[in-house]
Amino acid sequence: MQSLPIGRAFTLIEPGPVVLVATNDGRNDNVMTITWTMVLDFSASFAITTGPWNHSYAALEQTRECVIAVPTVDLIDTAVGIGTCSGKDTDKFARFGLTRAKAKHVRAPLIRECIANIECRVTDIVERHGIVVLEGVAAYLDAARKERRTIHAVGDGTFVVDGRRLDRRDMMRAKLPAGL
Amino acid sequence: MQSLPIGRAFTLIEPGPVVLVATNDGRNDNVMTITWTMVLDFSASFAITTGPWNHSYAALEQTRECVIAVPTVDLIDTAVGIGTCSGKDTDKFARFGLTRAKAKHVRAPLIRECIANIECRVTDIVERHGIVVLEGVAAYLDAARKERRTIHAVGDGTFVVDGRRLDRRDMMRAKLPAGL
Repeated sequence: MQSLPIGRAFTLIEPGPVVLVATNDGRNDNVMTITWTMVLDFSASFAITTGPWNHSYAALEQTRECVIAVPTVDLIDTAVGIGTCSGKDTDKFARFGLTRAKAKHVRAPLIRECIANIECRVTDIVERHGIVVLEGVAAYLDAARKERRTIHAVGDGTFVVDGRRLDRRDMMRAKLPAGL
Repeated sequence: MQSLPIGRAFTLIEPGPVVLVATNDGRNDNVMTITWTMVLDFSASFAITTGPWNHSYAALEQTRECVIAVPTVDLIDTAVGIGTCSGKDTDKFARFGLTRAKAKHVRAPLIRECIANIECRVTDIVERHGIVVLEGVAAYLDAARKERRTIHAVGDGTFVVDGRRLDRRDMMRAKLPAGL
């Protein structure tokens, strides 16, 4: 995993991939699958929607940090599996054979099997909507990985895999943040 | 366009497609391209991130309503074009040859060229994050349309087109809302 400039971290979330959110509650690591995410600005602010019904929520609320990891299509059954059991009674890292790497700024682990990881701090929780606001503080990309296609949850139990990429950089030049 | 049960509207937004947001400020229709969206619940609540720098924001704030329309890949240059000019000085419906249809519950128009449209009310604005919370009140799908692939903005001027669809409904049955 190589370092990715934090100013590019939003490009990992903007396409709308399924993500894994890793937490550490002071004793145990846990991970949940989240498909409700949104970029908030070009300075690595993101929102996820969750709530007390998720076991990870208490850790997010108390530790104010997490790692967002982006799985590719080869991990679809891992992502679905993580989303259909609870950290309350399951060590998901063991059950799904995930390899942890140490993060720099947060206690939650990076996930080596994922193509990208973002270390995040919780900067706000909008409780009335279950919106957790995150700020990315470090990002990593596994640039050597061959499988790069992420997955998009439809919400009905089906998922759409990335297809081809279209380039409209020339049309959008004036609207893009500098350096992209 | 045929009616889509409002309980399924979140499946239009959850995969993370680029969307068009149509408004009417009492005099003129306008439309903007938004790539920062998020589902908030299974009852057709969505969030979009925007702010006063977008001409449409004043109409959203004042009229408390809009239409979210979902374009497919054949409309990518329309979506990018809409996102790179302003309703302040441009009649975007004329410029991009968009066909309006009358909505039932809101004054903003539906867009016939899009595969799906959701009539929405603004239920909240979280000003400190630029988050506009919407509630879908009616949804429509153009089921006869052959091109159904939506587009996902990466944020750097490139876009990922939908690829193939994977079915994990059996694995997820217990987690899906009833009736999906």
